[in-house]
Amino acid sequence: MQKHAITIAPSIMCADLANLEAGIREIEAAGLDTLHIDVIDGSFSPSMPLGIDTIKRLRELTDLAFDVHIMANDNEFFIQEMINIGVEQITFHLETSIHIDRYINLMKKNNVKVGVALNPATPLSVLEYVLPQVDTVLLMLINPGFATDKNEKQVRYANKKVTDLREMIDRLGLDTRIEVDGRVSLETITDLVAAGADFLVAGSTSLFVKGYTLAENKATMEEKIAAGLKQREES
Amino acid sequence: MQKHAITIAPSIMCADLANLEAGIREIEAAGLDTLHIDVIDGSFSPSMPLGIDTIKRLRELTDLAFDVHIMANDNEFFIQEMINIGVEQITFHLETSIHIDRYINLMKKNNVKVGVALNPATPLSVLEYVLPQVDTVLLMLINPGFATDKNEKQVRYANKKVTDLREMIDRLGLDTRIEVDGRVSLETITDLVAAGADFLVAGSTSLFVKGYTLAENKATMEEKIAAGLKQREES
Amino acid sequence: MQKHAITIAPSIMCADLANLEAGIREIEAAGLDTLHIDVIDGSFSPSMPLGIDTIKRLRELTDLAFDVHIMANDNEFFIQEMINIGVEQITFHLETSIHIDRYINLMKKNNVKVGVALNPATPLSVLEYVLPQVDTVLLMLINPGFATDKNEKQVRYANKKVTDLREMIDRLGLDTRIEVDGRVSLETITDLVAAGADFLVAGSTSLFVKGYTLAENKATMEEKIAAGLKQREES
Amino acid sequence: MQKHAITIAPSIMCADLANLEAGIREIEAAGLDTLHIDVIDGSFSPSMPLGIDTIKRLRELTDLAFDVHIMANDNEFFIQEMINIGVEQITFHLETSIHIDRYINLMKKNNVKVGVALNPATPLSVLEYVLPQVDTVLLMLINPGFATDKNEKQVRYANKKVTDLREMIDRLGLDTRIEVDGRVSLETITDLVAAGADFLVAGSTSLFVKGYTLAENKATMEEKIAAGLKQREES
Amino acid sequence: MQKHAITIAPSIMCADLANLEAGIREIEAAGLDTLHIDVIDGSFSPSMPLGIDTIKRLRELTDLAFDVHIMANDNEFFIQEMINIGVEQITFHLETSIHIDRYINLMKKNNVKVGVALNPATPLSVLEYVLPQVDTVLLMLINPGFATDKNEKQVRYANKKVTDLREMIDRLGLDTRIEVDGRVSLETITDLVAAGADFLVAGSTSLFVKGYTLAENKATMEEKIAAGLKQREES
Amino acid sequence: MQKHAITIAPSIMCADLANLEAGIREIEAAGLDTLHIDVIDGSFSPSMPLGIDTIKRLRELTDLAFDVHIMANDNEFFIQEMINIGVEQITFHLETSIHIDRYINLMKKNNVKVGVALNPATPLSVLEYVLPQVDTVLLMLINPGFATDKNEKQVRYANKKVTDLREMIDRLGLDTRIEVDGRVSLETITDLVAAGADFLVAGSTSLFVKGYTLAENKATMEEKIAAGLKQREES
Repeated sequence: MQKHAITIAPSIMCADLANLEAGIREIEAAGLDTLHIDVIDGSFSPSMPLGIDTIKRLRELTDLAFDVHIMANDNEFFIQEMINIGVEQITFHLETSIHIDRYINLMKKNNVKVGVALNPATPLSVLEYVLPQVDTVLLMLINPGFATDKNEKQVRYANKKVTDLREMIDRLGLDTRIEVDGRVSLETITDLVAAGADFLVAGSTSLFVKGYTLAENKATMEEKIAAGLKQREES
Repeated sequence: MQKHAITIAPSIMCADLANLEAGIREIEAAGLDTLHIDVIDGSFSPSMPLGIDTIKRLRELTDLAFDVHIMANDNEFFIQEMINIGVEQITFHLETSIHIDRYINLMKKNNVKVGVALNPATPLSVLEYVLPQVDTVLLMLINPGFATDKNEKQVRYANKKVTDLREMIDRLGLDTRIEVDGRVSLETITDLVAAGADFLVAGSTSLFVKGYTLAENKATMEEKIAAGLKQREES
Repeated sequence: MQKHAITIAPSIMCADLANLEAGIREIEAAGLDTLHIDVIDGSFSPSMPLGIDTIKRLRELTDLAFDVHIMANDNEFFIQEMINIGVEQITFHLETSIHIDRYINLMKKNNVKVGVALNPATPLSVLEYVLPQVDTVLLMLINPGFATDKNEKQVRYANKKVTDLREMIDRLGLDTRIEVDGRVSLETITDLVAAGADFLVAGSTSLFVKGYTLAENKATMEEKIAAGLKQREES
Repeated sequence: MQKHAITIAPSIMCADLANLEAGIREIEAAGLDTLHIDVIDGSFSPSMPLGIDTIKRLRELTDLAFDVHIMANDNEFFIQEMINIGVEQITFHLETSIHIDRYINLMKKNNVKVGVALNPATPLSVLEYVLPQVDTVLLMLINPGFATDKNEKQVRYANKKVTDLREMIDRLGLDTRIEVDGRVSLETITDLVAAGADFLVAGSTSLFVKGYTLAENKATMEEKIAAGLKQREES
Repeated sequence: MQKHAITIAPSIMCADLANLEAGIREIEAAGLDTLHIDVIDGSFSPSMPLGIDTIKRLRELTDLAFDVHIMANDNEFFIQEMINIGVEQITFHLETSIHIDRYINLMKKNNVKVGVALNPATPLSVLEYVLPQVDTVLLMLINPGFATDKNEKQVRYANKKVTDLREMIDRLGLDTRIEVDGRVSLETITDLVAAGADFLVAGSTSLFVKGYTLAENKATMEEKIAAGLKQREES
Repeated sequence: MQKHAITIAPSIMCADLANLEAGIREIEAAGLDTLHIDVIDGSFSPSMPLGIDTIKRLRELTDLAFDVHIMANDNEFFIQEMINIGVEQITFHLETSIHIDRYINLMKKNNVKVGVALNPATPLSVLEYVLPQVDTVLLMLINPGFATDKNEKQVRYANKKVTDLREMIDRLGLDTRIEVDGRVSLETITDLVAAGADFLVAGSTSLFVKGYTLAENKATMEEKIAAGLKQREES
């Protein structure tokens, strides 16, 4: 059972990187309250979208909730840096973590919401003991860090994985959120929400579709979300 | 339910490494159509059976289907090299892979059959979302890369693991193949086939048993396989 | 069903490190027969409690059973060193192991009891094929290597994880032992034993509680254990 | 003998990271032609100032010469990314490079100027065969990647190292440039230029000294530079 | 002063990898006594020419002196494997070695000749204390492991580096050999020998130039060598 | 010119590791004021003599100056731990350090004496800019971490390297100390001191020679030292 309103989290990468303040103001003006920020170390995946100092600077400018997605090999370093900056939620990958429980404690002690991310092929069984401690599970629907590679399509089992995770969460009576990331587009939102997603990372195929304002795209997204929620109730 | 004919894949390591062309011709003459090739980087396991250049040279000589088993830490490099050479199937280990789904896409885009390999102790749960995308699951029945170590015996749970995987595949209605590798001998073939294996890596304890020709050993293997298939039907 | 007597394994780290011989004699005098020894490489976790040479020296002094818990990245090196020293049980972490089955064989060939350790967040599904080969599963109840960090509390799901593992072991008809490590205190022992633990790593919150002799603390522990066993029978 | 005019290279990190376009315009307006950009992977040093995508975006906006200083473990990846973006000069650290000559060839083939960087403690002898192939040697005068750490002072042997390198370059009859990076301040510029530096990375202690415009600070820098050049001629 | 006859060491990579025995016989028939074998792990450089098992098999077939050049990160593993096989000389790279002196001892104890290899950009100063212990210094004249990359040209400072090393050896009164590897061609041999090289790795641009027999190419090489020796005497 | 009295630094590894307090008292009673402690991580060299917690405990017991020799890959972690414990001198290896200057600053800020260690084969040229900042250069005369391997002999160029370093120090007018470590025996002390060593790590072949008391061995060492100093003056 869905307990949260659906969150739309625009990706900072879709703003103009040379004029981020203006991008932030536009997002605020559209009535959005969350900002999704990818941190990649070049080694986990061969890309490095944004620097830590840029995030630090953005923190000074806005009260948007920062939803930081770390894709790195040295999780502890990046988690600590994000805590220092003062972000609202930090998500790290279980595939590169040995001291998972420790990172969770570190965040909880600092009043930061806890997210764990799973690559497309990672089984849900890794969540067995972690799930009750986390606020959000981020399911990657494309391979993380390759968003700009046009050949990267959303995995075929995207909806099934969301459905399976929703069942797992409901069975345990938890209110963990399901965040979906990777080609979350106007075409796929309805199905993803119907399957149980309630936190949508929004990029070039949804909130930033060209030819429309942020507000227009947001309105379209909300329609798709409503349709998804309706389907979910009916099922 | 078995959907494939049983494949016998002779290991290139059993041919005379100083006269590979002759070895290839003998395999062809025996009516076999597949060649199993191990690629190890010395770091995943402390051995390095064959070089990339040797495989490249063999490709020029024969139309045998190349079934390449990568045991390495940097899977992406070796997968790309094998794609460049033009092999028919590439199998990589899930234990050393972070971007599993990405490697699968890379192979599919290049029309190469996809195999994933599991070490003896690796649970089948790691296959949860991967299984429908792969052509073959290779189950290591000894520790990979230690084949020449006489103390390495086939793991006791070999048959059980094959049985469990066969059930998983059948339950999902897939036609994924089960490849078994490691001390697949005349003594164990019947049981392995009965349990559901349909792709046999053949080495010194089966196709290359000393004192017999390849053709003779192949005939013995086929008897054992037939016995296994019969058992499977009856169960 | 519990098949073993409950073992109390005092941690060597609670003895006076500058007078270990005296510490060993005190443990022997209290009628204990096992010594728990942590080996950490500084990289798996940022600590290094004890050196290999110290363990070698202790081996010359006592017949206590050495229960060695390796927390390291290069498991094979440390396992081999412990075999050379002649310890009774070696436990290694599945999270850092690729050739799990190989390490198990290495120990069995040398008549050393096999333990596998799981970090708090690691799912039990990783034990699927390993469980029948191991003598002991060590469940970390705090993050390994951070015992001296006062903020490290026992994980909330400690009892549940013990219960789940006990069920798994019983279902398979095995007699694997469950070792618990991390803040195993006078307050938690009863519940842990009731849940199915039968091997208790004893440190500053149980056997070495200040103000009491080892013998007194041991007596208190045995009461708590008895209470736990009673609860287990009644459930 | 000095053969180049002295270059002042403002560090992008001193601009407002949320309004980079404005920062770029201000630098251009001050009549500067070079932009110094640090790329750090979080592993070579625990910081990550800027992302690759930000540099890509800046490239679209300006014709300033991009002088990129890579501080990373995987030099080949970052060098290739910078070549793809189209920067004017790439500097990498010899301390983390095994195939130095290869990176140099890669840049030359792509018509990018070649820089090699040395940490404070690295001896000049590492330049023995490299020097004739490189356009610029960057001498780090503080520890790379720790610029924001107030305790990091310029190394005491800064001037001596510049002097030694200038002698080495002159002795070989080369026209390699000497770039100095790290607390290059109004107080130290004269001495550094006198010693032989001709490429100054300019940050918060020179071009961006608070309370003055870029143009004013630039004028002060040019005075200091002139004084340094005068000293050099006289010596 | 030259103390050794010049050695021509044909690279095994130029033989037909599917018919190595024939290749070996041809090399023997041409009156050559040395075989140069590259061992690369795919990580030091992105290639892996030959496997360990192939070398083991060649050892059974011939008494040619095996001159093995290891390009790997884990030198100790490969050195030990080569000692086990029984090769005549092992060369490892100083750039990836921490326990250099230890490897040298390991080889000496096993009566294997010691070689150390330097990448093109590596300064000769690293040889300071090593030189008297080694039989051969191998100077890479192209980047190691990229021989098949047509863009890889011999470094410009090849002759100068040979000259510098010859001076260093003569000054110390040693009889260390200088092996040169990488595009050692009919065009460059004379100069390299004149500069002091006395061990030539021979590949596709010398001994295996197409259109000629091995014997013919060997004769041409010997002319070039003689010319080089003459120049050396005259200088 | 020798400026320091010669220091004899007994290795803690020669004390009884199960009765360290007694060992410490014996060293104090013999009138020695320094304790040499090796910290190895099992990865730099395959050994791990002592744990960090043992050093912490020794610190509580004695005012001996702790001379800690770190042989590890992650120098920063171990340096920080030793600073926390409160030791007098920390020595780290240049071969595994990228931010050498940073570690030196870290120690100076904490009033810890700075040592840098060189493996046998490492050239003195790496000291070029570091030497004036360090209190002690430790020259390894055997391969570090292999002291218990009977086949490890002191390198042949031990005396020459000490002589070369003494010249380098004198030429620069510094008063850096030269520490020698590895088979510093009654047979070699005179020559090493004559060559310029003034800090002797004393183990089983000098201060702990069996059959004599510490005091007797110390007296013998002092004779050898005096002989060495005499030779030095005369040369």
